[in-house]
Amino acid sequence: MPKLRRIVLFLLAVVTMVGTIALFVPVMGHAAQDVSPIYGIAIQEGYRDWKLVSVAHEEGNLNDIRAILGNDIAIKAYREGKLPFPDGAIIARIAWRYVSSEENNKVFGQAQSFVPGEAPPWYLQFMVKDSKKYAASGGWGYAQFDKDGKAADEAKIKTCFPCHDPIENRDYVFTRYSP
Amino acid sequence: MPKLRRIVLFLLAVVTMVGTIALFVPVMGHAAQDVSPIYGIAIQEGYRDWKLVSVAHEEGNLNDIRAILGNDIAIKAYREGKLPFPDGAIIARIAWRYVSSEENNKVFGQAQSFVPGEAPPWYLQFMVKDSKKYAASGGWGYAQFDKDGKAADEAKIKTCFPCHDPIENRDYVFTRYSP
Repeated sequence: MPKLRRIVLFLLAVVTMVGTIALFVPVMGHAAQDVSPIYGIAIQEGYRDWKLVSVAHEEGNLNDIRAILGNDIAIKAYREGKLPFPDGAIIARIAWRYVSSEENNKVFGQAQSFVPGEAPPWYLQFMVKDSKKYAASGGWGYAQFDKDGKAADEAKIKTCFPCHDPIENRDYVFTRYSP
Repeated sequence: MPKLRRIVLFLLAVVTMVGTIALFVPVMGHAAQDVSPIYGIAIQEGYRDWKLVSVAHEEGNLNDIRAILGNDIAIKAYREGKLPFPDGAIIARIAWRYVSSEENNKVFGQAQSFVPGEAPPWYLQFMVKDSKKYAASGGWGYAQFDKDGKAADEAKIKTCFPCHDPIENRDYVFTRYSP
């Protein structure tokens, strides 16, 4: 019996240890997930699978080429031309360095092709619509992440709304839907 | 009885007419659906909902900005880095005129923003992988459509494979996946 009791105690210890690890792993995983200051927005799950809204090229200091994607709620609103966007709409913007494609140009016989290169520090942005939670910023919360998932700081995030404010008549969203 | 016979004959005529129309309507519908010469490829259903592969800007005569989308088979192969692409993989390329966004530039305080404009004649292209059916062109069939769904002619479609041929080492696909 003392032997059996030792086995039981040992098994209990193992179960407790496994349980403790199982409890902590998700917490650790969660701690690694950065969120934007002010708005508390994390990288949105599955955003890379979202449907295309449009594309763009920004010159100047940005010098990037970008894709704008939307979750189903955002895409539906875009396609129906509905403004303002309903709560739950999320728009993702992925940017890559704007680089000349030597590979393509060689085939085309001239320098004409520009493609995405590395991820710049402003790699990933989100606009999340929640008219109550983000009432102070036109109903949208903002977030920016670099390619390692690090959220941009408060000074940066404070510049989002003032820049989007002039396009209040299109619910603060720059990008139009490209059919 | 002769009256009844007339009614029966009339009903038979009606049934025959309705049946004939029912037979022809799908044929007419099919005739309206243009397909590419050589490869016989139609506009792929639901392509605008496909996931993003990448984006690009072509200068020169094209002067467009474009998005490259893939069906699930193509996206899976891209993400797993698998070459050649499996049969069933389809890549769509949508192009729009490359235009300066006065609206965006006004907000940014400088001319820096380029966005999609109207659809050019080369609006929509598809590459469809079928290693048997399209064995003579590296396993890919090609198609191009304007915004009204009109397929490009044979002379145009004949130029597809020779241009893709130099990139045989990447299974004839120019566009790389942008993460």
